[in-house]
Amino acid sequence: MKDWDLHQSSTAGGFFLLYSTASASAINYAAVFGTMLPSARPLLAAAAVLCFWLLVAVAEAKVHHYTWDISYQLKSPDCFEKLAVTVNGEAPGPTIRATQGDTIVVAVHNKLETENTAIHWHGIRQIDTPWADGVAGVTQCPILPGETFTYQFVVDRPGTYLYHAHYGMQRVAGLNGMIVVTVPDGFVEPFSYDEEHTVLLGDWWHKSVYEQATGLSSNPFVFVTEPQSLLINGRGMFNCSLAPSGTCNASRPDCALPTLFTAVPGKTYLLRIGSLTSLSSLYFEIEGHPMMVVEADGHYVLPFAVRGLFIYSGETYSVLVKADQDPRRNYWAASHVVGRNPSQTPSGMAVVSYAFNGNNPWMPPPTAPPAGPAWNNTAIRVEQSRAIFAHPRYVVPMPARADRTLLLLNTQNRIDGHIKWTINGVSLMFPATPYLVAMKRGMKDAYEQRPPPDMYDHMSHEISAPAPTNGTVGSPVYRLALGSVVDVVLQNSNALNNKTETHPWHLHGHDFWVLGHGEGKFNPAADAWRLLNVRDPIMKNTVPLHPDGWTAVRFRADNPGVWLFHCHVEAHVFMGMGVVFEEGVKRVGRLPSSIMGCGRSKGLH
Amino acid sequence: MKDWDLHQSSTAGGFFLLYSTASASAINYAAVFGTMLPSARPLLAAAAVLCFWLLVAVAEAKVHHYTWDISYQLKSPDCFEKLAVTVNGEAPGPTIRATQGDTIVVAVHNKLETENTAIHWHGIRQIDTPWADGVAGVTQCPILPGETFTYQFVVDRPGTYLYHAHYGMQRVAGLNGMIVVTVPDGFVEPFSYDEEHTVLLGDWWHKSVYEQATGLSSNPFVFVTEPQSLLINGRGMFNCSLAPSGTCNASRPDCALPTLFTAVPGKTYLLRIGSLTSLSSLYFEIEGHPMMVVEADGHYVLPFAVRGLFIYSGETYSVLVKADQDPRRNYWAASHVVGRNPSQTPSGMAVVSYAFNGNNPWMPPPTAPPAGPAWNNTAIRVEQSRAIFAHPRYVVPMPARADRTLLLLNTQNRIDGHIKWTINGVSLMFPATPYLVAMKRGMKDAYEQRPPPDMYDHMSHEISAPAPTNGTVGSPVYRLALGSVVDVVLQNSNALNNKTETHPWHLHGHDFWVLGHGEGKFNPAADAWRLLNVRDPIMKNTVPLHPDGWTAVRFRADNPGVWLFHCHVEAHVFMGMGVVFEEGVKRVGRLPSSIMGCGRSKGLH
Repeated sequence: MKDWDLHQSSTAGGFFLLYSTASASAINYAAVFGTMLPSARPLLAAAAVLCFWLLVAVAEAKVHHYTWDISYQLKSPDCFEKLAVTVNGEAPGPTIRATQGDTIVVAVHNKLETENTAIHWHGIRQIDTPWADGVAGVTQCPILPGETFTYQFVVDRPGTYLYHAHYGMQRVAGLNGMIVVTVPDGFVEPFSYDEEHTVLLGDWWHKSVYEQATGLSSNPFVFVTEPQSLLINGRGMFNCSLAPSGTCNASRPDCALPTLFTAVPGKTYLLRIGSLTSLSSLYFEIEGHPMMVVEADGHYVLPFAVRGLFIYSGETYSVLVKADQDPRRNYWAASHVVGRNPSQTPSGMAVVSYAFNGNNPWMPPPTAPPAGPAWNNTAIRVEQSRAIFAHPRYVVPMPARADRTLLLLNTQNRIDGHIKWTINGVSLMFPATPYLVAMKRGMKDAYEQRPPPDMYDHMSHEISAPAPTNGTVGSPVYRLALGSVVDVVLQNSNALNNKTETHPWHLHGHDFWVLGHGEGKFNPAADAWRLLNVRDPIMKNTVPLHPDGWTAVRFRADNPGVWLFHCHVEAHVFMGMGVVFEEGVKRVGRLPSSIMGCGRSKGLH
Repeated sequence: MKDWDLHQSSTAGGFFLLYSTASASAINYAAVFGTMLPSARPLLAAAAVLCFWLLVAVAEAKVHHYTWDISYQLKSPDCFEKLAVTVNGEAPGPTIRATQGDTIVVAVHNKLETENTAIHWHGIRQIDTPWADGVAGVTQCPILPGETFTYQFVVDRPGTYLYHAHYGMQRVAGLNGMIVVTVPDGFVEPFSYDEEHTVLLGDWWHKSVYEQATGLSSNPFVFVTEPQSLLINGRGMFNCSLAPSGTCNASRPDCALPTLFTAVPGKTYLLRIGSLTSLSSLYFEIEGHPMMVVEADGHYVLPFAVRGLFIYSGETYSVLVKADQDPRRNYWAASHVVGRNPSQTPSGMAVVSYAFNGNNPWMPPPTAPPAGPAWNNTAIRVEQSRAIFAHPRYVVPMPARADRTLLLLNTQNRIDGHIKWTINGVSLMFPATPYLVAMKRGMKDAYEQRPPPDMYDHMSHEISAPAPTNGTVGSPVYRLALGSVVDVVLQNSNALNNKTETHPWHLHGHDFWVLGHGEGKFNPAADAWRLLNVRDPIMKNTVPLHPDGWTAVRFRADNPGVWLFHCHVEAHVFMGMGVVFEEGVKRVGRLPSSIMGCGRSKGLH
């Protein structure tokens, strides 16, 4: 590996982790993460943030109009032919590209025959437009077949974001894509590159989403099984010999091994990586090419190098990759399941081709595809989570203390014979009337008035055993004081099968500071608080809750609206693993009548 | 076969076709139908109808309340495991039983996850309750997941009716059942029997309704294929060796050979037979037991005997069967596809068991199952259609002439690359706002204002060739003068594959008099009118349009509302084969706000 002293000239200097002498095969996580420099200049950082916003204000904002037809199409993303919910005939849908401050207008025409839809713009905070968050049951009525609903919102920060269906488990069926927001002209990012590419990771089932949902809500419970394949930019690898005849065709062009990008020797590439898996936690790697992580969920991070990236559903990362390997061959890119046994799920595969005289860009790499890390090594995944810090020039100052602390325990419970996930004993079920309409209009009988508990019984609850008691199914809301600071400690515990797993939690309408990750049970009265990073925490909108552990986040409830906070595993939120926050709903502007028409919002306008 | 002089004592005498000496194997259609006696006493008939209504008025009407949860469940109706849309967990749903004049109240709770629904009460005219007809897009907005919609209507006539989903092609997924309306106490029907049973016939696919609909709307067009099985009372026979392993289990109890009924020697049974096939025309027979047809679509008919019954989707018939065969064995009941090649669709099978000392009621019949008639013999099917006359004591007097005549030609057209069915050149697509709401509220931009053509170019159009021109997709309405008499002549023509097939047409909100069936092209200026029966036509709500032929019906547009008239083949109406009638919409009472909320009816109440 050649020396690589990328970006030093374009930064304030010193903040980058340089791995000029580290060979890819010798990257040691502890050594890498141990060299990171702390942020020591908060005032400078604040000034940088201010300049950034001034620059945004003077830039000329554009309005981008899209018209999307949502329909079912027969697709073969992994060679097995199956229906997918598509955007203008494609799954994944088109990448939305805009500049910070621009307005996005998407007219969504539902051309499904009997099924509704709603689209969530994942990572966009929807400031002043809480009705455009796209969560059916929370911020809007679903869009009916034959109808057109127009989402309009401002992309107020640069970064990598996602979009996907947010209605039942519909995301499993394929309606998803990426949003890339670039900085305005004249603004310099804290890194540089020659070209950028998007990498959307997913998992894929051959059973329909209807079968999955029916199994989950049946008694006896039927889990969704492990995915049949992992997708990279909508393509996967399924062994057709395992499928019934006539259903799978390995020679279809739409499941050919995809080219991730074509590398010109010496150039540097920014990969905007997002995961919209329905179940799987992933490890993404490019053979022989370490990655420098520079952005997470729309925030610049203190760059750190990884041989491969752990990424959870709902997260995005931007990484820099330098084309510095032998250009006379091509290289594997791969995604692997971690955190669950991957034996039934072949890795997702793609190719990084070198554009070099004498290299055949269509030739598969000569090496065996990389195998990925041990799937059940939780420690290295926690290590990555703990290695992410805000970029020193982009630290968003965090309030020193919280006004309110929520201790949210997930347990799996059997309620009326059905297996549910509960948070502090409550399994969330959306009411027929969207919360936003019900709360703004004061319809008190449209959702559960009794608030859910802020705390669980952390003194006596044993997290390494299944929940001893039953929970309830309901639609309550945490009402947060507008502008207040809220700490949330997510506490994992074992499911009914006595196993513990990863839950990536996603907060709508906000970013949160990631205070920290810990093992075992968080003790609010004891020294667990001392483990938290209050100096340069990264802001994110999605964060993993690791097995047998806890994750603490802080956010300011400063965005009037009603917002979902939930596990991003489709089966889990379907089983009730989420909570709803309301803040300042009276300050929300006049609701568009287009979000109404269902439940008790019939007849409203 | 023993003598059988059924009912002579309970009728006015002479009107029944008696087949006391005909052996089942010797029934000759021409001979049987040739012996029917004409109705010669219209005044007496009118008096009987009047008495009937007076009796109804004095009877004490009941209100029947039902609560139905609509959900997906994994079912194995033909041993192949597949999702079905169920009513309270069952497919078919429960049989609604009521007495003439009763009120039915069904609270439909949609527990599908992302899919809407609407339920049509097939054959119920919905007088004064046009909003309860249950056609999404015509009479109501669909019922959203999580919502409850309450249907309330009066069953004003005795007879055999049906219910089923009427939203997209959702009926294919299993939401269907029967409605049995009996005469009030003290009223004597024109036949008698010892016991009654329901027989619901269907067809069944292993592909999901989503795959079917996607194929139909794709380019290239993919037809739904022939059904994998025929169902009798929700059970069918699929050869599991043809299915991928793990998907089909021939030993499941829910696909065991069903018992149609248990016969006590010498007793007479009324079978209320309904067909809710999605595609198939059927022939239903009981080995060795001829059937006496006594009711069709809720109207008493001049009884006639058949060895087997041709029945089309949307039709109901009541037949009498006498248990007069050797009671030491059991007998096959079977349904067979006719009108389309049945080679890919095994017959539906059930057993009539004899309760007799020495007979094992669980033993399959010792004979080979009956094979049914030649599937492509159109003539014998037309013959049955022509053999149905009103019962002489129940002839509903028909107006002597029509105020308006519609000549409706079906053609298959390629529109924007997609194959559609059109009626006089228009392929019907429901607007996002239900017609009933749009028209009652005068929302002129919510549907197509230009009326569709009353006539096609019958002088030059060649029905035995595919349509020469393109049609259009639209949502126009035939506006009928309230109280006017309308003749409709349905004219069949060849599809793009140059084949002609059967289309059972169903009219909502009315019964029509069946004026006649003819071969070839109906010529309105010539002697085709002379072929029509204006003396004792049967009234029905569903009538077959036979291959290469025409069917003429007359109805009085006396039911204020907006009503669908369409081919009852799910794939065909999905492809546009229907028209909409409006009559006296201004006279419709205040619309319930529960039917609103979609399209431009958002915000209305």
